[in-house]
Amino acid sequence: MSLTVVGSIALDSVRTPFGERERMLGGSAVHFALAASFFADVHVVGPVGDDFPEEHVELLRSRGVNVDDLERVSGGETFHWRGHYEIDMNLAHTDATELGVFADFEPKLSAASSQADVLFLGNIQPDLQRRVRQQCTPRLAALDSMNLWIETARESLLAAIGEVDCVLLNDSEVRMLTEEPSLARAARKLMDLGPRIVIAKRGEYGAVMFTPERFFALPAYLLEEVRDPTGAGDSFAGGFLGYLDMQGTKPSDAALQRAIAYGTVLASFNVEEFGIERVASLSEGEIGERYNALRAMTHFELPR
Amino acid sequence: MSLTVVGSIALDSVRTPFGERERMLGGSAVHFALAASFFADVHVVGPVGDDFPEEHVELLRSRGVNVDDLERVSGGETFHWRGHYEIDMNLAHTDATELGVFADFEPKLSAASSQADVLFLGNIQPDLQRRVRQQCTPRLAALDSMNLWIETARESLLAAIGEVDCVLLNDSEVRMLTEEPSLARAARKLMDLGPRIVIAKRGEYGAVMFTPERFFALPAYLLEEVRDPTGAGDSFAGGFLGYLDMQGTKPSDAALQRAIAYGTVLASFNVEEFGIERVASLSEGEIGERYNALRAMTHFELPR
Repeated sequence: MSLTVVGSIALDSVRTPFGERERMLGGSAVHFALAASFFADVHVVGPVGDDFPEEHVELLRSRGVNVDDLERVSGGETFHWRGHYEIDMNLAHTDATELGVFADFEPKLSAASSQADVLFLGNIQPDLQRRVRQQCTPRLAALDSMNLWIETARESLLAAIGEVDCVLLNDSEVRMLTEEPSLARAARKLMDLGPRIVIAKRGEYGAVMFTPERFFALPAYLLEEVRDPTGAGDSFAGGFLGYLDMQGTKPSDAALQRAIAYGTVLASFNVEEFGIERVASLSEGEIGERYNALRAMTHFELPR
Repeated sequence: MSLTVVGSIALDSVRTPFGERERMLGGSAVHFALAASFFADVHVVGPVGDDFPEEHVELLRSRGVNVDDLERVSGGETFHWRGHYEIDMNLAHTDATELGVFADFEPKLSAASSQADVLFLGNIQPDLQRRVRQQCTPRLAALDSMNLWIETARESLLAAIGEVDCVLLNDSEVRMLTEEPSLARAARKLMDLGPRIVIAKRGEYGAVMFTPERFFALPAYLLEEVRDPTGAGDSFAGGFLGYLDMQGTKPSDAALQRAIAYGTVLASFNVEEFGIERVASLSEGEIGERYNALRAMTHFELPR
């Protein structure tokens, strides 16, 4: 089993009410890959510049992530995001986005990356997502996106959605894209485009998954302190798709539900510290413990 | 076992994206009493005016609700709320509040009402809540409140909270009242005042319950269409406290968790139609079915 992810590989400068970091390791592909690395063989596809510290590449390798398709662009600069969060950390405020080597990125997947069983198209321009999709024939293809692409590349995004099995978006983006206030109906409109799984992410409130016959919802794991929510959605996707890749076959409803729980668990670790700090030092035992704690936090008995 | 509720008994004029109603039956005590009536003997305490239709009293009676302490004030007008909701129905917009007979309401509980096992102080001025509390010695006393009282009667509200076992507030109100952005720490600050149960309501995202040793969270039951969210919080409280009253003894963690599930179920029925329309015609069978559907929607298996 293996899993390929394309997305940003970034240096993030982030300020939250709990502190700040300059040019730490980040990006959708990185957060995803680290979370998924607990379950699957992950291949990362994306460009970095000369300024990208070798220790970051080493960190990915140390988690077993394959970096053969991490393209180092000579003379280029790594994608850089600068943002901050106020007290309501559900909302990210972008202060600057420097595309750097991403401006001219043209994905070329190696044979190993293109033969992955599961493909995750992280949040990048939807035409780029489609060009990656065309190079793969995975058992399960998924994409994430954002309001920027809904506003500036709507038709491309709708086409990209038509070419995947699973869509992950924030709940407000699901409603914005479909112009449908009922989340359940909005999810069905997205399914009409092709995907059989639609996941609406709700920040601190968790996530809902829609499949043709059912829906499933979990609250986020409740934390004393959220220090930096950057990458939570990608960590969620990493736990979700990593677990599904490990399952091998076409996932059952029960497997999809466990996958949502693993996504919830990985996202909860991600937001406990800045950037990748917490997930990079995580153990499988800690993941198992929190999975059980999430069950205890959400399960109730039959009536009596 | 019996349960006493004090709160508004209202005529509500409501407009939502799905329609409108003029002077329909509403109010916190009414929504609460109807939801709780599926579990407990409920006594309603509160005033109405000459204009309050006798058929509304009959409706309460038909659900087994005791209306001996429903005080009809001759020459008075019933409390009237006028409000509307936009597409984001988590937020109620108040257009007018006419206190009517509530302006001079001085609660006097009958012996039967004052001897209740469970007391719910619905969202009214906190000094009024305290005067009702002083007339009762229940096994479990709970209160709801709102941002208006946090802003205009903060000290009274804090005193009222110190006199109950359970507090139900919206999550934003929990944070506002404690000036603490972490919901878990905010809940502990409220427990330091006295209550051993704090419930943060999250609208369409469900609810979290904090007790000294644990927390428990459920998403709201996912509906195709929410037609009118008015009274959802009171229906939640009615299902929650009604079930706890039925349990008789000091509730176990498992009973508290089942009670949260029943609260979630009753709230979900409440919002499916305007005002009390759906809950008034509900059956116990429907409640049981949705309880099981909520379990299926939120439960996931052990890892494998």
